[in-house]
Amino acid sequence: MLRIAMAQMEVIPGRPDINTKTMLRMINEARQQRADLVIFPEMAIPGYLLGDTWEQPAFLRDCDYYGRKIIAASDGICVVFGNVAVDWDKRGDDGRVRKYNACFVAQNGALLGGENFPYPFRIKTLHPNYREFDDTRHFFSLRKLALELGVTAEELLQPVTAWVNGRPLRLGCLLCEDGWSDDYFTKPIEILRQKERLDALINISSSPFTLGKNNKRNRVFSKQAADSRIPLIYVNNVGLQNNGKTVYTFDGFSTAYNCRGEIIAYCPPFQEMLHCFDLDLANGGLQQPPLAVPDDSGIDSIYQALRYGVEKFLAAIGMKRVVIGVSGGIDSAVTAALYTQVLGPDRVLLVNMPSRYNSPTTKSLAADLARNLGCLYTVVPIQQSVDHTVDQISRTPIVNLSAGGEQTLEVTPFMTENIQARDRSSRVLAGLAAAFGGGFTCNANKSELTVGYSTLYGDQAGFLAALADLWKHQVYALGQYLNDEVYKQDVIPRKTFELVPSAELSVEQAVDEGKGDPLIYPYHDYLFRAFIEHWHRAAPEDILEWYQAGILEEKLGCQPGLVNRLFATPQAFIADLERWWTLFTGMAVAKRIQAPPVLAVSRRAYGFDYREAQNGPYFTARYRQLRAELLQEG
Amino acid sequence: MLRIAMAQMEVIPGRPDINTKTMLRMINEARQQRADLVIFPEMAIPGYLLGDTWEQPAFLRDCDYYGRKIIAASDGICVVFGNVAVDWDKRGDDGRVRKYNACFVAQNGALLGGENFPYPFRIKTLHPNYREFDDTRHFFSLRKLALELGVTAEELLQPVTAWVNGRPLRLGCLLCEDGWSDDYFTKPIEILRQKERLDALINISSSPFTLGKNNKRNRVFSKQAADSRIPLIYVNNVGLQNNGKTVYTFDGFSTAYNCRGEIIAYCPPFQEMLHCFDLDLANGGLQQPPLAVPDDSGIDSIYQALRYGVEKFLAAIGMKRVVIGVSGGIDSAVTAALYTQVLGPDRVLLVNMPSRYNSPTTKSLAADLARNLGCLYTVVPIQQSVDHTVDQISRTPIVNLSAGGEQTLEVTPFMTENIQARDRSSRVLAGLAAAFGGGFTCNANKSELTVGYSTLYGDQAGFLAALADLWKHQVYALGQYLNDEVYKQDVIPRKTFELVPSAELSVEQAVDEGKGDPLIYPYHDYLFRAFIEHWHRAAPEDILEWYQAGILEEKLGCQPGLVNRLFATPQAFIADLERWWTLFTGMAVAKRIQAPPVLAVSRRAYGFDYREAQNGPYFTARYRQLRAELLQEG
Repeated sequence: MLRIAMAQMEVIPGRPDINTKTMLRMINEARQQRADLVIFPEMAIPGYLLGDTWEQPAFLRDCDYYGRKIIAASDGICVVFGNVAVDWDKRGDDGRVRKYNACFVAQNGALLGGENFPYPFRIKTLHPNYREFDDTRHFFSLRKLALELGVTAEELLQPVTAWVNGRPLRLGCLLCEDGWSDDYFTKPIEILRQKERLDALINISSSPFTLGKNNKRNRVFSKQAADSRIPLIYVNNVGLQNNGKTVYTFDGFSTAYNCRGEIIAYCPPFQEMLHCFDLDLANGGLQQPPLAVPDDSGIDSIYQALRYGVEKFLAAIGMKRVVIGVSGGIDSAVTAALYTQVLGPDRVLLVNMPSRYNSPTTKSLAADLARNLGCLYTVVPIQQSVDHTVDQISRTPIVNLSAGGEQTLEVTPFMTENIQARDRSSRVLAGLAAAFGGGFTCNANKSELTVGYSTLYGDQAGFLAALADLWKHQVYALGQYLNDEVYKQDVIPRKTFELVPSAELSVEQAVDEGKGDPLIYPYHDYLFRAFIEHWHRAAPEDILEWYQAGILEEKLGCQPGLVNRLFATPQAFIADLERWWTLFTGMAVAKRIQAPPVLAVSRRAYGFDYREAQNGPYFTARYRQLRAELLQEG
Repeated sequence: MLRIAMAQMEVIPGRPDINTKTMLRMINEARQQRADLVIFPEMAIPGYLLGDTWEQPAFLRDCDYYGRKIIAASDGICVVFGNVAVDWDKRGDDGRVRKYNACFVAQNGALLGGENFPYPFRIKTLHPNYREFDDTRHFFSLRKLALELGVTAEELLQPVTAWVNGRPLRLGCLLCEDGWSDDYFTKPIEILRQKERLDALINISSSPFTLGKNNKRNRVFSKQAADSRIPLIYVNNVGLQNNGKTVYTFDGFSTAYNCRGEIIAYCPPFQEMLHCFDLDLANGGLQQPPLAVPDDSGIDSIYQALRYGVEKFLAAIGMKRVVIGVSGGIDSAVTAALYTQVLGPDRVLLVNMPSRYNSPTTKSLAADLARNLGCLYTVVPIQQSVDHTVDQISRTPIVNLSAGGEQTLEVTPFMTENIQARDRSSRVLAGLAAAFGGGFTCNANKSELTVGYSTLYGDQAGFLAALADLWKHQVYALGQYLNDEVYKQDVIPRKTFELVPSAELSVEQAVDEGKGDPLIYPYHDYLFRAFIEHWHRAAPEDILEWYQAGILEEKLGCQPGLVNRLFATPQAFIADLERWWTLFTGMAVAKRIQAPPVLAVSRRAYGFDYREAQNGPYFTARYRQLRAELLQEG
């Protein structure tokens, strides 16, 4: 019987000192619980998402220093942990010192596994370079090492043998992506399981939360264990890491599978914990009854991830109080309800900032929200300042001091809309936040962010965009969930759900007359999702193909019949498509470059996850042909 | 005799339609000039820096469509060009359709080279994944293909044979990084030159400008040609490409080397041109006298790159007019002089925005600058608006609607500094720019950006940060160059150079009393450069080691003796170091996440080139030890 401790620790990125302390504490705990083996996540010491900090030799020396402390602490227990491993005598492809994303197995103060590998540690075979991942930028893979040494990956992939209770324990050590080999021609697990007498597969990971990913992980990893007929133990960290523009929660969800692929132990998501369980190697872990793991694809998982993410982000930047502009609409209401859960109502200041275009309806909804949540509340009108700005811009003479001549400029109603938005955020909220001793939130959703339906330095500003990876319909669902399941009362007023979504920046957007956003969320949410989240990312060419074939709603996943109800003619359909595609790939890119960090939950979040260049809109040759065909028919 | 046309075209990223037109025009020109061979850059059809546009199948089909047009246009001439090549039946490591960064050789409507390679094109062997490069994210390398096919890179790297004047012409085709193999264990040129009867090496590139890079390129490529005893022709594109946060100029500087490594032809930088020359293959191109190529490491090259970059960026986003806030200081003056060169004075509106803290000195310098440049000019005072904001924030009651209670907030002098900065940019400049029909510039330099010595939504805002890759001393040098060499008169007033640099946001920053920025540029410029631009990026640990060893100035490249003059004690030195390191890796990261695109000139620019996570400051164990030692001694 093998006693295993899954150390689902919170890894603080860039803090080897703190992470080492956590690990030393957990090793002691595991020892007290008589564990034979304690398993930590990938990159447990340095953290994983560090940008280019890997280029600082001082930081690498520091990781090595703390790694040696962990090795020294392995008396009487086998410790598996992730760290960066440095070969100071070799170069990476970038010419800097060579770094491996490595798995160390230590026991009784020494590293194991050096007898059948060039180093006394194991290194990652498969390097992810999609979404937020940049492994090849920083690390040298086992595939590359094999090529360099003139051997095969098969020769290099060897188990590590530890000794437990006087018997050899042969471990197949994998790092994260090594377990997701479907798209690679090298399959580490298939190679490792050919090796004789493998007792267990261990996958140490640093794998960010994505909605529904744990469901998939269980399918994939369960099959790996069953196909291999070997128990598999997956250990992932919790915590928050970021790549600047995009912020990721890590759900942990560390899980052990028996040799039939059934789950015999797991750690609940988003909790730091050491979880011990017994594995009877003689029967491949079949002694325990299999467990069911909660689904992670619903609105409850979104809430859990956002709440955890906001809490950890605030802690990481040391922010204890926030100011939230509340308009009476759904986005700011959900933001307020979310932050209030994290900080408590006394540390949340809600601010309504009416201009002449704000209706009594929304002003009163904003106050209702503040009352329901028990937050601090204030009203700062902006009309006087907006009038002053318009006056200054339109009346101040512009001169040419060398050639002479004088002129004034005109301020259009559209410009005045943006002046209002900037006045609220950059003048009022930023000033209030400083005086309140905190920051102000960005309440934007993903639908707005996609097409830049927001004002730069205006409603797009803030220290974090917590809802910016949710489509508008998901924001509504989250609001409902907050009322029903979190607060168990309508803290977000019913009327806020029923109101037409509107920016209220002009008479054209009068909510009480049912006027509002130009976005038709039941359609555009799904159209935009196809642009960014679909695996084969859709471009206008694909949309027109689907439209022509009558399968657009099916492809987008929106309501059947909706498209023809919304657009009477191909002309109207095409005009709408081109309008939003042009914004999505044009002005919206410029705005996203200066957007706040986005808290990621979906399979593709803006920022470092979805990388983009400010290259302007483009329509393919095939698109132009399809367009001509459709307009001729129409 | 072989007649070669180097097609140094301007590649527009993401525009296969426009690029194909350019190429067809240049092929015709080459044919008219009786060229046997015309060579285009890497990724000539799609462009190179496209973010994740590579994930759109529609875009890939479009590149293929336009690529076939080029192949069809190769009647009677051999056309070498870069494009993405798609194998729709295979997967990349990300599971999407497989893409190669490929070099096509077409002649008489057909592709050459399929007889000794799995595809009728060549693919890139070495993939850069440092700085702004993400090749492995998008493309499948020759090294990986070799591994997949179970053959060696040596077997796959074969010349392409074209037929010119009835004789075989054996070309060794390289793509960009393939020529920079020093840090890789696979050396494409060494492999190719072993192959029998190679007539020429061709390197098609899409290589962004970096100060001094062409000097290095000439050393490296000249050696390659000489070592191989084979002529080498390097063709690079011009134009502007970006990765969102960072904007790159491409200098072209296409160059041909004879078999002794001497330069026999080149295209001047930053100019689209087709350059024809004759290469006598019988004697390895030794018939022509060697040429000298201009140095590209001086302030003139910085000016050339910035001017070209600003011009192309404005054209790319369709911006024809700009507003520039001018303070009387050097950064805004240099920005104004630079944009006026690009747009002409009538399309540049300079705005001075005094508060009560701005001196008559700087106000009059701003007007002098406008007069000297002949730009449009206006003065928009901000004091009234700032007073109103301070008044609203400090007097509006904050209430708790559910629990009762009322309070007000205090606005400190530091907060009022930021209120001024935001008032200028987000209120005045943004509004004025819209009314003027353009955007407003960000005038920040690299020293400020490094430590966040600027206000978010304030002086850090703008559509482009054109000087943000220049240290403060480089901004001064550029100002001098503009006066001396570009305008040939002191358009930037002498006094602007002599003034103490200051934000003038409080009485503590009164320029006429010699008070200004807390940054000591002759030292901090060099300290910060070590943090970000040094090859082995320096951390406080390294700085203390150097300080202790008395070699700090030498390591940083600043004035000898400076450090001890500035800091009387180790305490003072350490306090300064920790202050700026904490800002650099703390608040400044948060600010950079929302900063405008940076126009890159150095070997490491902020944004996508230098990737960073918002993880907060960290001091290594060894730093803390050194610190303790120094403070004990001190």
